[in-house]
Amino acid sequence: MELAFVLYPNLTALDLIGPYEVLGHQEGVRVRFVAATRDPVTADAGLVITPSATFDEVDRPDVVVVPGSGTWQAPLADGVVARWLRAVHPTATWTTSVCTGSTLLAEAGILDGRPATTHWAVRDALAARGAVVRTDRVVRDGDVITAAGVSAGIDMALTLVGLIWGDDRARFTQLAVEYAPEPPYDSGSPETAPPEMVALARSLMRT
Amino acid sequence: MELAFVLYPNLTALDLIGPYEVLGHQEGVRVRFVAATRDPVTADAGLVITPSATFDEVDRPDVVVVPGSGTWQAPLADGVVARWLRAVHPTATWTTSVCTGSTLLAEAGILDGRPATTHWAVRDALAARGAVVRTDRVVRDGDVITAAGVSAGIDMALTLVGLIWGDDRARFTQLAVEYAPEPPYDSGSPETAPPEMVALARSLMRT
Repeated sequence: MELAFVLYPNLTALDLIGPYEVLGHQEGVRVRFVAATRDPVTADAGLVITPSATFDEVDRPDVVVVPGSGTWQAPLADGVVARWLRAVHPTATWTTSVCTGSTLLAEAGILDGRPATTHWAVRDALAARGAVVRTDRVVRDGDVITAAGVSAGIDMALTLVGLIWGDDRARFTQLAVEYAPEPPYDSGSPETAPPEMVALARSLMRT
Repeated sequence: MELAFVLYPNLTALDLIGPYEVLGHQEGVRVRFVAATRDPVTADAGLVITPSATFDEVDRPDVVVVPGSGTWQAPLADGVVARWLRAVHPTATWTTSVCTGSTLLAEAGILDGRPATTHWAVRDALAARGAVVRTDRVVRDGDVITAAGVSAGIDMALTLVGLIWGDDRARFTQLAVEYAPEPPYDSGSPETAPPEMVALARSLMRT
């Protein structure tokens, strides 16, 4: 089973590495980090990741994971990721996104009229691209699974492990990564955070 | 403020990328990925990260983050990370670990007689190296903060943002990464997971 983790400049690293850690150790998987070229890709705050394949080299992935970015308009304008998604989604078993990665799925036409979630700050932008936006943390619709912002990729990937390998394997994985979260604050969503912080975050994502 | 994220072969990527995502976007920080050499480092399930500095080049970091590994005995035997920690800890403002990274802090003598936490499967191994092991998700003792397994690095880093930049900044960061976790299962700790899964995970970590 080939897992394709999509790379592009300035991606949010945790969007990708949460699902990678949860999915990448499962039996029989082949992990690919796929980008436009083999040149190292610099993520959001300076992390440099080396792709293991180019988009041209991965044409039949079984699972696709598309991360988001604080500068999410750039990969949309560029069009490279959406073009590849259009080509591989029809044969993929699961196409997934984390955070604003959903906008790339929408751009590829994968979310037309379908329920999907995304980073809370870009819900309008996703709706404008044809998705039926939900505020859930993880939304599954057929062969497409979308996750809310950044850290939600962990919840999405555990859900996906359950779907592919069964609930017991997902429970084991949760134990292995000791995922019993205890956030020290209660401001992880726009419903619980102070309104001025919500406004500031929204402006920083220029939506 | 210089943040040093430690790299070594086969590290658990999420241990490092959770704290990186939470700390790396704060104002005035310089993010360094530090390793023995500048050669790319391959993490647990194939992620390849390029260091931005060698241990020799980073001798006065303000914050140190040490990740763990499923093959945690290797960096202990190698000694390179512990040697660097011994050199930089005295002048660092915060020395932190995630998962089995705590064993490297202990090897460097930083946890002698001090309270600390770690991945649940290596609690005995950490105690054997002189720490007073606790089962908490995040433990702060003076200038040292340790986190439990893998995903606990996110909780640790939000705690640290609060200590360095204040509670409001930590709340804002939590909102930005939409950290309102909803694990789809309840088996993230040895207390809640089925006993046979706990035994299997323990044997895989060879403790």
